[in-house]
Amino acid sequence: MVQSGMPLVSAFNWVPDFARGHVRDLRVRWALEEIGRPYESVLLDATTPRGTDYLSWQPFGQVPALREGGFAMFESGAILLYLGQDDERLLPREAQARWRAVSWLFAALNSVEPALTALVDMKLFYADQPWSGAAFATLRPAADKRLAQLSQGLGQDEWLAARFSAADIMMITVLKIANTMDLLPGHPALQAYFQRGLARPAYQRALAAQLDDFTSEAPKQIEGA
Amino acid sequence: MVQSGMPLVSAFNWVPDFARGHVRDLRVRWALEEIGRPYESVLLDATTPRGTDYLSWQPFGQVPALREGGFAMFESGAILLYLGQDDERLLPREAQARWRAVSWLFAALNSVEPALTALVDMKLFYADQPWSGAAFATLRPAADKRLAQLSQGLGQDEWLAARFSAADIMMITVLKIANTMDLLPGHPALQAYFQRGLARPAYQRALAAQLDDFTSEAPKQIEGA
Repeated sequence: MVQSGMPLVSAFNWVPDFARGHVRDLRVRWALEEIGRPYESVLLDATTPRGTDYLSWQPFGQVPALREGGFAMFESGAILLYLGQDDERLLPREAQARWRAVSWLFAALNSVEPALTALVDMKLFYADQPWSGAAFATLRPAADKRLAQLSQGLGQDEWLAARFSAADIMMITVLKIANTMDLLPGHPALQAYFQRGLARPAYQRALAAQLDDFTSEAPKQIEGA
Repeated sequence: MVQSGMPLVSAFNWVPDFARGHVRDLRVRWALEEIGRPYESVLLDATTPRGTDYLSWQPFGQVPALREGGFAMFESGAILLYLGQDDERLLPREAQARWRAVSWLFAALNSVEPALTALVDMKLFYADQPWSGAAFATLRPAADKRLAQLSQGLGQDEWLAARFSAADIMMITVLKIANTMDLLPGHPALQAYFQRGLARPAYQRALAAQLDDFTSEAPKQIEGA
């Protein structure tokens, strides 16, 4: 394991094309770019089962996890709050604005993402199942309803908690799933919000860094996630 | 809207039998019981569409949301962190233990719950669809894998972050879904962890309070969630 004063962020050295730019270390890289903190990525090999070392850092074998010196934690949402605890570029200082940002960050992960993931899974992972088309059609209205509620919640605002925050990093990366499924054109205010997020230089640096880390050739056999 | 010095927690005055004891205001009630803080519930009517007042408090029309004086926030995970920020009975003070608890709290919501929800939805909401049985069988191994990883992560410990914390409130309420589907007997350490959680007096008071609030008769027509 690399030792340094910089935060270490776990990521993959290869993922299939459809997942590039979607892996969740992107959220942590983006947050670090917003606050100008250099970091190093710790690349996991897609073909090798996770060892007990990694599982004691990230119990589900997923990315990202964060390490700084002897300190270790996991889950992209938790890491964003950790990075934002003393930095108002990620979390507003004033209590109402701060907890509104935290509320929206959780909403992205638990009220919006599951509806989108259920849908995209049918396309990506269960496409060979005879029932996946019908399931997709049944699940789609729930995803669209969530997006309509989000759009209403955002209203005329530029960002979810008055100013840009970790909540927007989370929500915009979640909306990438909706964008993949062409659900955003039905919600023009969200489409514009999404584009505002992608236009941020910190996002673009984070994306480039994730793509640059896919240094490995496609594996012959992919380890189950 | 009720005005008082006590925290107000939104909840429902009626849900179908299968949802009783599962609605997410249980998490917030449990946390408040652990720290001995009195609160009032604000009951939403299951038959009435959410008004704009409530949607400006909880953009997705869900429960729970929390209000204290002029302060308002939503999402059960966010509310647990808010209640724990200055109370070590919910979040340890020492940084590594604290952020390990926050990591596990997010893992409950985003790495464990979605796999269980996808499964239970097939039983509860899509049971009339011809494809739901096959979808359940396909989704089940993913849920079981998550439970096995959680069990491994818990190891021999009593609670997820060394001592009881908000992470356990979150994970144990998530495991209620697994319990409903009889998935826990396959994971004896989780089964025991789950029972330790349910045995806490604060949990039992929270459950009784949620059940007590179901004061309304079954509606003739149920408003879509």
